Amino acid sequence: MTVMTRTMLQEFLNREFPEIEHMGFEVAAVDDSSITMQMKTSAKDLRPGGTVSGPTLMSFADVTMYLLLLAQIGPVALAVTTNLNINFLNKPNPGKLRAEGRLLKHGKLLATGDVSIFSNDDTKPVAHATLTYAIPPQK
Amino acid sequence: MTVMTRTMLQEFLNREFPEIEHMGFEVAAVDDSSITMQMKTSAKDLRPGGTVSGPTLMSFADVTMYLLLLAQIGPVALAVTTNLNINFLNKPNPGKLRAEGRLLKHGKLLATGDVSIFSNDDTKPVAHATLTYAIPPQK
Amino acid sequence: MTVMTRTMLQEFLNREFPEIEHMGFEVAAVDDSSITMQMKTSAKDLRPGGTVSGPTLMSFADVTMYLLLLAQIGPVALAVTTNLNINFLNKPNPGKLRAEGRLLKHGKLLATGDVSIFSNDDTKPVAHATLTYAIPPQK
Amino acid sequence: MTVMTRTMLQEFLNREFPEIEHMGFEVAAVDDSSITMQMKTSAKDLRPGGTVSGPTLMSFADVTMYLLLLAQIGPVALAVTTNLNINFLNKPNPGKLRAEGRLLKHGKLLATGDVSIFSNDDTKPVAHATLTYAIPPQK
Repeated sequence: MTVMTRTMLQEFLNREFPEIEHMGFEVAAVDDSSITMQMKTSAKDLRPGGTVSGPTLMSFADVTMYLLLLAQIGPVALAVTTNLNINFLNKPNPGKLRAEGRLLKHGKLLATGDVSIFSNDDTKPVAHATLTYAIPPQK
Repeated sequence: MTVMTRTMLQEFLNREFPEIEHMGFEVAAVDDSSITMQMKTSAKDLRPGGTVSGPTLMSFADVTMYLLLLAQIGPVALAVTTNLNINFLNKPNPGKLRAEGRLLKHGKLLATGDVSIFSNDDTKPVAHATLTYAIPPQK
Repeated sequence: MTVMTRTMLQEFLNREFPEIEHMGFEVAAVDDSSITMQMKTSAKDLRPGGTVSGPTLMSFADVTMYLLLLAQIGPVALAVTTNLNINFLNKPNPGKLRAEGRLLKHGKLLATGDVSIFSNDDTKPVAHATLTYAIPPQK
Repeated sequence: MTVMTRTMLQEFLNREFPEIEHMGFEVAAVDDSSITMQMKTSAKDLRPGGTVSGPTLMSFADVTMYLLLLAQIGPVALAVTTNLNINFLNKPNPGKLRAEGRLLKHGKLLATGDVSIFSNDDTKPVAHATLTYAIPPQK
């Protein structure tokens, strides 16, 4: 049972993080253990040789895990990333990227998940990240 | 298409790594992108409070990724771990442990995968690791 | 013995990565095992509550390790990040950030280092990252 | 100001963790931000080719960070590892190993540090690990 729907997550993201609106992150689907996000790279996401920059992939992984967690605990919580580990696996093509997030643990203080990022409709990931968020105590 | 079957991997493990035979690692299933392993904890794997030690879980994750890679490239290669990142998620119970490995990338020089470890038949992992192996050049 | 000086690294960065010029990364010092970088956060690096965004810290760590490696191997090599692991330790203040990079290994194929990031002149890091770069074969 | 001395840490380790006494971990020095540990590999720590096994290095890194933390908070706390990231950098020689641990953050709930492991008196590390421990609430 999630406490935020796909639409609520999207509205929250647009409202609270206007500074990353240009990245065009879109929530495609979410449930109590997984999330699918999409984005489309633009010129500023690219590096010489036409590949997608590492920071763009890291931001995408981070926002994916963040929204997957908020879907479970709601928008009130000020969760922060404590650890991110990312492996860059294959050179991504410019264009559409898809992130698939899985919730591995949802504890009282810490939540951990992993995120696989794909180019377009590929089945082999271009990057894989594992992230831990600290959940602030609820009043 | 794997080049080593479940039985070949098991025989290789028993023959080449007699020093870890006491850990009782068993190959349950393997294919070209995943592997399932099993083990049973014994007294020396436990810590005060009855939980399974971190090094036991790390060894289990490491051997799981190692055999998943060897299934693809064969027993000749002297592959070595270059990076291991592990999150300890829940307190495992003594007894049976199951590891599910996924191959995320199989490149010429580097192979990366992740391994989720479960207590018995639980569906929530007790630990999750991501590992990279360096593959030595083939002659 | 480095093959690129502080000034050469700075010019290389400005010339090859104009898309991150707005981040204002500055090379303060470099030698054959360490590097010091500086940057000054601007509005787009900040998050609600006035803290510095994770992606800004990750970019800073990444460019620090990248230039530390290039100082050793020169600007010709197309090195790429294969793994980045970062721990966010303390809330950074907006303003000046300093990164201290150490080269832990410089192999033929892989180079690994770690980067500690500090607010202003603090001695306790706000973030700590470990990074591995793959070095492409030289012709 | 540490609350446990080198001798207290050593006695605690021997008393509470008899199952790893065979590894011969020794506390060489400790203060409020760092620790030095030593060990000597034996036959069971080695792998084909005479190198030290990954699990031995991971155990050494883990106990080093654990004791560095206990030196600050005392032996009562039941701290557990939540994340360990390790890079295997160079092939260690059998014989003496030295670990140098640094405390990067000591928060109320989480403590993070890194550990460099060296062969004998070498100055280039054979492995480097970053670890986070969860500190249980004090009553």
